[in-house]
Formats: sequence, C-alpha cells, structure tokens
Amino acid sequence: MAQSVELKNPHLNKMSQDYLYHLALNVPNTKDTRDIQKRFGDVKFICMGGTASRMLELALFLRELLGVKDNSEPEDLCRSGNRYAVYKVGPVLCASHGVGMSTFSVVLHELLKLVRYAKCQDPVFLRIGTCGGVGVPPGTVVVTKEAYNGYLRNEHEIAILGEKVVRPANFTADVVKDLVACGLGDNFKTIEANTMATECFYEGQGRTDGAVCNYSEEDKMQFLRKCHDEKGIRNIEMEATMFSSLTNLCNVKAGDICVTLIDRLKGDQVEISMETKSEYEHRPFIIVGRYIQKILASTT
Amino acid sequence: MAQSVELKNPHLNKMSQDYLYHLALNVPNTKDTRDIQKRFGDVKFICMGGTASRMLELALFLRELLGVKDNSEPEDLCRSGNRYAVYKVGPVLCASHGVGMSTFSVVLHELLKLVRYAKCQDPVFLRIGTCGGVGVPPGTVVVTKEAYNGYLRNEHEIAILGEKVVRPANFTADVVKDLVACGLGDNFKTIEANTMATECFYEGQGRTDGAVCNYSEEDKMQFLRKCHDEKGIRNIEMEATMFSSLTNLCNVKAGDICVTLIDRLKGDQVEISMETKSEYEHRPFIIVGRYIQKILASTT
Repeated sequence: MAQSVELKNPHLNKMSQDYLYHLALNVPNTKDTRDIQKRFGDVKFICMGGTASRMLELALFLRELLGVKDNSEPEDLCRSGNRYAVYKVGPVLCASHGVGMSTFSVVLHELLKLVRYAKCQDPVFLRIGTCGGVGVPPGTVVVTKEAYNGYLRNEHEIAILGEKVVRPANFTADVVKDLVACGLGDNFKTIEANTMATECFYEGQGRTDGAVCNYSEEDKMQFLRKCHDEKGIRNIEMEATMFSSLTNLCNVKAGDICVTLIDRLKGDQVEISMETKSEYEHRPFIIVGRYIQKILASTT
Repeated sequence: MAQSVELKNPHLNKMSQDYLYHLALNVPNTKDTRDIQKRFGDVKFICMGGTASRMLELALFLRELLGVKDNSEPEDLCRSGNRYAVYKVGPVLCASHGVGMSTFSVVLHELLKLVRYAKCQDPVFLRIGTCGGVGVPPGTVVVTKEAYNGYLRNEHEIAILGEKVVRPANFTADVVKDLVACGLGDNFKTIEANTMATECFYEGQGRTDGAVCNYSEEDKMQFLRKCHDEKGIRNIEMEATMFSSLTNLCNVKAGDICVTLIDRLKGDQVEISMETKSEYEHRPFIIVGRYIQKILASTT
C-alpha cells in the first residue's frame, strides 16, 4: 500500500508553521497543509541535478515523454530564494542542488520536508549527475550501489553537536536494479557499480591540476587503482554518501545515476567537446524517463 | 613589493594548457598567458558570495562606488559553464560560490589558478556572506578570525588519497583588522569573532527543524552555548574552514565577512522580512567597499 513519508524528527510535530528557507516555500499551517498537498501532493519522483539549466532541460524532456500537456516555459517555483531552481512536470519535480554534499544536503532536507507536508505517496528521489569515471570509457552511465567517502569507507560521516555520527551509505536495491534494467539495449553502456563521493573536486579526487597538490602522479594512480580494484568504484562524484545516507534514514527510496565525462585512469582534465558533453548528459535522462514510465505504469 | 601568486603545485608547470572547467575559462598556453593577463591582470580583489544575484548586486554597488565608468549590465564571464557567475568591475571580481565548502572549494581552486595565470599582484580573497549568529542580534556583521569545524576544532580536515589531512584555518590578521576598522561608526555593529563552519545546515548546525533530528532542544542549546562561551564563536556558516585553509596554504590574503540573519540562541527559523534581509545583506557590501577603497588608495 502506498505510504506518506514519516520523518524521524519529533520536533516537526511541535512546529505550527514552517518556512523552507532555501526553497522560499512557506508552510503557514503545518496542521492543515491542504494548499501544499494541492500543489505538490501528486509528486512521485524528485529528480535532482547540479545545475538549474540541466534541470530545466530534464523538465522539458520529461514533459514531452510523459505527455504532460503544457506549452509554456516551465516556471522555477523557488526563484525568489535565489539559490535552487525547482520545476514541476506532472508527477515529477526537477530540482537543482549545486556542486557537492553541503549544498545538496540543504535542498534535500527541505525537499524531504516538502514531500512530508504534501503527503506525497511513495516518492522516489533520483540524482541525475555528471562524474569522473574510473576504468570505464567516457559516456558510461553508472548507477550507484554502495557509496564510499574519501577514506574509502562505505559510510557518510557528519558532525552533529560536536560529535561524529556515521551512517550507512547504500542506495535502494530495487531502484538500482530497475534503473540498470532501463539502460539495457542502448548504444551506450549502463552499469551498476560503487561510487566514491568527495568533498573536494581537486585534491579530494586525487587530481593533480588543482591550485594545490603535494602528491605525485604515481601516488594518484595507485589510489585510483585501489578504488577500482579493491572497492569496485567506477565513478567519482561529490554527493552519493550524503544523499544515500539521508534518504536511507528517512526511509525513502533513492537512486544516483551519473554519466562519466572522463576516465580518471587516463587523465584529470575534461576534454570532450560541448556537443559530446551535451549528448552524454542526456543519457541518464533517457534511462530515468523509462524508469518513471515503468513505475507509473505499474502503479496506475 | 607587490607579488604574483605562486601556487604549491609543481604539476601546473608541466601542463601546456589548462581548462578551468567549472568557470568555462580556457588557458590555451600556460607558458604565454598574455591574453589572460590582459583580461584579468588588474584584478586585486576577488569577492565571493553564495548567490549569483547577490554578486551581481555587489558588482553594481562597487562599480558606482569605485567610479568605474560603464552603464551596461555587467556580463557573467562564466555563464557558459552554467555553474558559477563571475562579474568583473575594474580591479574586482565578484564570483558566486553556492552553499557550502564543497561547491566553494571547486570555484576557489579555479579562481586561484586564474589569478596565477593572470599574474595578479597581491590579490585579496574576500567572502561576503550571510550566516546564523550566536548570541548577537540579527544584522550584526561578523569578520572571522579563527574558523572552527563541526567538531569545534580550529582546523580544516580533508581526505586526500584516502588519508586524513588537517590544515590550519585562520584568516589573515591584517585583513581582519582592516575590515573591522572599516565597520566603525555605522548604525550597525561589526565585530571580530570566531566562526563555526559546517557541512550541513540542519543537523550540522544543531537545528531542530531539518528532515531528521534525534537530539533535544536542551542538547542543542548546550552545544550552541559551548560554541559561544568556550570557543568565542559568534556566527555559523558553511565555508570558513575550507576557505581559510586553502587560501592560507596558497599564501594569499583572505577575509570572511558575514551578516547574521538570526540569533541561534533564540531560534532556528529565519523570520526577518525580505526587506530587512536585503538591508542586512548590504551591510558587508558597505564595509568591503570601504576596505577596497582604502587598499587601492594605499597602493596607488
């Protein structure tokens, strides 16, 4: 049976109103959220990605695919917050989250509260991103199974009230399986693999082309090979550990699907053309589109 | 004597070209950067803040203040990257960095490489932000001295090649002193204090209004009082440790100046009106404007 989202925060029940600050969305009465339910209650998929422009593209792509009749420019529902862009296309929200865990965690907390107030049924959270590959050719689509942090531990660490809290960082098994299945038969490869998520794009990912670097090319290659050989890591991005741990804790389904723009075993600089990049970025859209159609068909 | 920026990365000398990926800025020949020098060589101040809209406002404010003759809409020089906005007004760059360390570190690495290639002389990096206050009234401007992480340690921790690296996180003494001096005599208060920088806006800052919270109001208050009483922390944001540690390591001057929108000893939700928020956000602009004028007057 379909279920609303119960969040593990008893304080929310004591709040008479809530302001989702970074989304600039007001919940004037937390005991009567009919207005929010009317606006967002039909949402079943929360798609998230780094940039506002890519999320607008995704919204337009899904609108056509899902046959949502509307020819107007999709409206950024959170424009007045000046931080994140959120578009709604039928049962799908497309939200930008910026680069990395810190910015993503802010909007994720607020989107989780939004689906709670809106009483969305069984919402699925999907991150659609770009990433560096490890031992796979550029253009490969990676669906994350286990997320590893920069210490190669399959967990997310967070400082809460000055204490270290460690949480599991795995994605929902059936979402992973379904996303990979939706990638079968394309002219590009979609694989299930593990992902390293780092707090830093340069030193954190072993790049030698940042402002600072005090390790050698050999040190770097040894580390990347260890990621590949010992941990089954095939891509590196900056969100997966926080994303999987928080959704896990909130008991909502989640998947992370990213296309690689580079093979880090062969270099640090992204060198593909803008056209190729654009084509690669579209690949996870195709898979997520099929996934959404499949889930919608099975629940209606 | 004025100096160019020397970065601690020997690999950069071996690269024949460089692509500042997230800024979408190409350095086609690292041995002959005259083109980059021509475009950016006069830059002395790199002002950075969370949102593109605030950085555009800052650019317009500084253009008028510094008497830069130009009536056109400032151009976002990094628009094609779709991630960060960068405006140039005379000797000042105004760049957006998003929310938190992960996104900020990406653009900071690339801006540091930019000032190196452009051979900028003694550039000063300034973050102009908003934050939560701790025991100070909303609207107080805080100039950070020491930056503390979520474990209340005055350091920045980063995972590099799987190993923990810990770096000092303090801002440049004379920048702090000068910024505070530029805030004297206003109808608002500017103070020098310590800052806590966290990876998470909700649990990381002890808020009880996130999607998840498993501590009590009393636990929260005890932690915030500890920040205040034992560490001299007067504000909380999400950037200061990474920012101070990386600029420190690169031997460039840096300052972090933020206005508080809330007193966390009194609540978690930001409740000021948009008008008040806008007025508060302008306060660090005023101080940074005076600081820039003062430095320019002393070096020309």
